Amino acid sequence: MTIMSEETGLAGVRVVPLTAHADERGQFVEVFRDEWDTDLRPVQWNAVRSHAGVMRGVHVHVSHHDYLTVLAGTLVLGLHDLRPESPSAGLSSMLTIDAAAPVAVAIPPGVGHGFWFPEPSVHLYGVDRYWNVADELGCRYDEPALGLDWPVGADPLLSERDRVAPDYATMRAAYLTGSTR
Amino acid sequence: MTIMSEETGLAGVRVVPLTAHADERGQFVEVFRDEWDTDLRPVQWNAVRSHAGVMRGVHVHVSHHDYLTVLAGTLVLGLHDLRPESPSAGLSSMLTIDAAAPVAVAIPPGVGHGFWFPEPSVHLYGVDRYWNVADELGCRYDEPALGLDWPVGADPLLSERDRVAPDYATMRAAYLTGSTR
Repeated sequence: MTIMSEETGLAGVRVVPLTAHADERGQFVEVFRDEWDTDLRPVQWNAVRSHAGVMRGVHVHVSHHDYLTVLAGTLVLGLHDLRPESPSAGLSSMLTIDAAAPVAVAIPPGVGHGFWFPEPSVHLYGVDRYWNVADELGCRYDEPALGLDWPVGADPLLSERDRVAPDYATMRAAYLTGSTR
Repeated sequence: MTIMSEETGLAGVRVVPLTAHADERGQFVEVFRDEWDTDLRPVQWNAVRSHAGVMRGVHVHVSHHDYLTVLAGTLVLGLHDLRPESPSAGLSSMLTIDAAAPVAVAIPPGVGHGFWFPEPSVHLYGVDRYWNVADELGCRYDEPALGLDWPVGADPLLSERDRVAPDYATMRAAYLTGSTR
């Protein structure tokens, strides 16, 4: 199993090629194997359904890795590196993942991520620590300092948490405080 | 975390209640935690999309457990206990799982299982051994000895493997040979 690396340009973000086996019944995809070189071993898996026009994030974690893929529909994944010591500090990347030609992405702590769904979609993600609200930092998806040119319409559907999320500087300060504690 | 047990009437089949958190954006479900009492620790996860009218199975494994849930659509799960030493040997059970009110089911080796999809669906399953064709036994879904009264139409969509699958007695003999080897 070869893991392509650095396709996003962000250090430590792994893009894992998956193989979609399609037939007249539908599609089969191996989405994760422990033996793959993904840098994480999930202890919890979550599944999320999103309507067309939904934006989730931007979020960042101090402690845990995410491993995500798309099972139905399309995800536009925006990434931004908040780690001051990273070779790609301050850089951003966008990646479109279609369930018909899926990849998985392993996202390390300190890489902010937002999810835009242009169509009804299902995504799956694994985390290597159990969910903890204290490890859920975030900012508005449309903060200019993120460097993410989202292909969204005027009024994406956001959760209340994401709608009233703080600005970039506040998220970055919270991340730096958490990551050096 | 309380795991309901024996809802299917089949020994060792666990039905795990999941919580669907729905909001205006869609739905969020924790589908698996290592700390849950599921009797298995998956090393591989697979995602499957099925069109309406698809039947998968009936399959049975000698060696590995399956842990499955439904992320979109509806699954009618048929189960049949092939284990001669089981308290529920020879018994069958059917369970309908809707993604809007999901449960997960942990299926031990020796419990045959078939999947009927009355609508377009996505299901996810984890296995505690890597995929091995030698551990994939099966029979025709419509073998009377299975005791499964599938709510299918006249002509469900089957894979070639499932269409030409052997009869119940042949599957049972192969299972018994494998499980005592």
